Amino acid sequence: MPNIRLVIEYDGSQFHGWQIQPAVRTVQGELTRLLELITREKIAVVHASGRTDAGVHARGQVVNFELQQQPDLELIKHSINGLMKRELAVLSADLVAPEFHARRRAISKTYCYKILHRKAPAVLDRARVWHVGYELDINLMQAEAQQLLGEHDFSAFRSKDCGSDNLVKNIYAVGFEWHAPFLDFRIKGSGFLKNMVRIITGTLVDIGRGHLPPGLIAALLKGTDRNQAGVTAPPQGLYLEKVEYGPDFDL
Amino acid sequence: MPNIRLVIEYDGSQFHGWQIQPAVRTVQGELTRLLELITREKIAVVHASGRTDAGVHARGQVVNFELQQQPDLELIKHSINGLMKRELAVLSADLVAPEFHARRRAISKTYCYKILHRKAPAVLDRARVWHVGYELDINLMQAEAQQLLGEHDFSAFRSKDCGSDNLVKNIYAVGFEWHAPFLDFRIKGSGFLKNMVRIITGTLVDIGRGHLPPGLIAALLKGTDRNQAGVTAPPQGLYLEKVEYGPDFDL
Repeated sequence: MPNIRLVIEYDGSQFHGWQIQPAVRTVQGELTRLLELITREKIAVVHASGRTDAGVHARGQVVNFELQQQPDLELIKHSINGLMKRELAVLSADLVAPEFHARRRAISKTYCYKILHRKAPAVLDRARVWHVGYELDINLMQAEAQQLLGEHDFSAFRSKDCGSDNLVKNIYAVGFEWHAPFLDFRIKGSGFLKNMVRIITGTLVDIGRGHLPPGLIAALLKGTDRNQAGVTAPPQGLYLEKVEYGPDFDL
Repeated sequence: MPNIRLVIEYDGSQFHGWQIQPAVRTVQGELTRLLELITREKIAVVHASGRTDAGVHARGQVVNFELQQQPDLELIKHSINGLMKRELAVLSADLVAPEFHARRRAISKTYCYKILHRKAPAVLDRARVWHVGYELDINLMQAEAQQLLGEHDFSAFRSKDCGSDNLVKNIYAVGFEWHAPFLDFRIKGSGFLKNMVRIITGTLVDIGRGHLPPGLIAALLKGTDRNQAGVTAPPQGLYLEKVEYGPDFDL
């Protein structure tokens, strides 16, 4: 059976998250509906590299699905881009080996969290950033963020309804970049728990504004208590940027 | 009389351009209305560094206006930001010498034109860029852009209804930067004619895609025929980034 991989961009504000649900518009639901329409096949399941929460954006989400018939990849790409009215676009479509699986084969994911750091409210970027108007100690936030590198139990950085039983994740790269007035937080890891990037970002901002103490990140990685971490940063600042698959399934 | 300067950001899609007009919502119209409401004074005129066309954004437009009474600058800033519902924000407000005039005292302006250069349509950036899906010779566009540097008569690069009689402008810096998938065109000059940046951008893109010949920019700067230039790039990709005033009125 042909196994098709798509790289997609979507505007999280237009969907109730990734996962298919009755009665609400989700990325998986819309993609499945359109793919069935275009291919005239029943599609068992469209897999993603991971779920994104309601409101979270993707610049490089990777998905795959199987068909019975050989597909016309250009037709799939152009039809979805034509039908989707600018909430979602297919950036690339290719045929991959049967053993490719968007989630199981992913070796790393990179998220970017975009903060607008200035007193004045967001205008041009209002649906795309978290506006943080108070003073921040960015050097301290940078130092705290470095504590996340390496393998840790991230139990303290997940939402209460996170059902994952693999709580140990490896962080490969992490840090802030200041492009005035934007403070971009980028984190690359083996995987992420539910709300993990948003809780990490919120905690770092709480430390940066002096509401939580320096050293807290290291302490939370040793303990596991979500209640000690900071706020969950809002979804509209978060972007799934990139998923990597290693040499066999290189994009 | 106190002379007040504001630096403002606005979302061009929410206004019919800068200039006050009956029956439509413009930046100058809205600002004047709100400033009169907040200060309880009649304001003669709110000057800007220059008009922006309908749909064009500003990240650093500079305006000034005179009042009878000493103003509360913080109140002005916060009230506008509170009342404007995210279409416009005041980034800073200060008192300036009586001889300051946002347009007459400006010594340079910098515009950025943002192109999304990829096959797939714009999603996250759909209201903020020009989507160019065809192939472009960016090196050629870069070389052509360099011809704009220095003092030239820009008659060939203005809209037919441009009423300006000062057609000679000095370009201080110009060039493309590639931040995949974005191609940013930035131009800094002594001043700009109506639609000038959009016609320059459209002409460079037409050259880059092979629809107009190399060498055209230099030829247009010697001749003055608008009909030989390329398309006018759409407004939603254009941002007034910065206005400079020299040491006396430094921002």
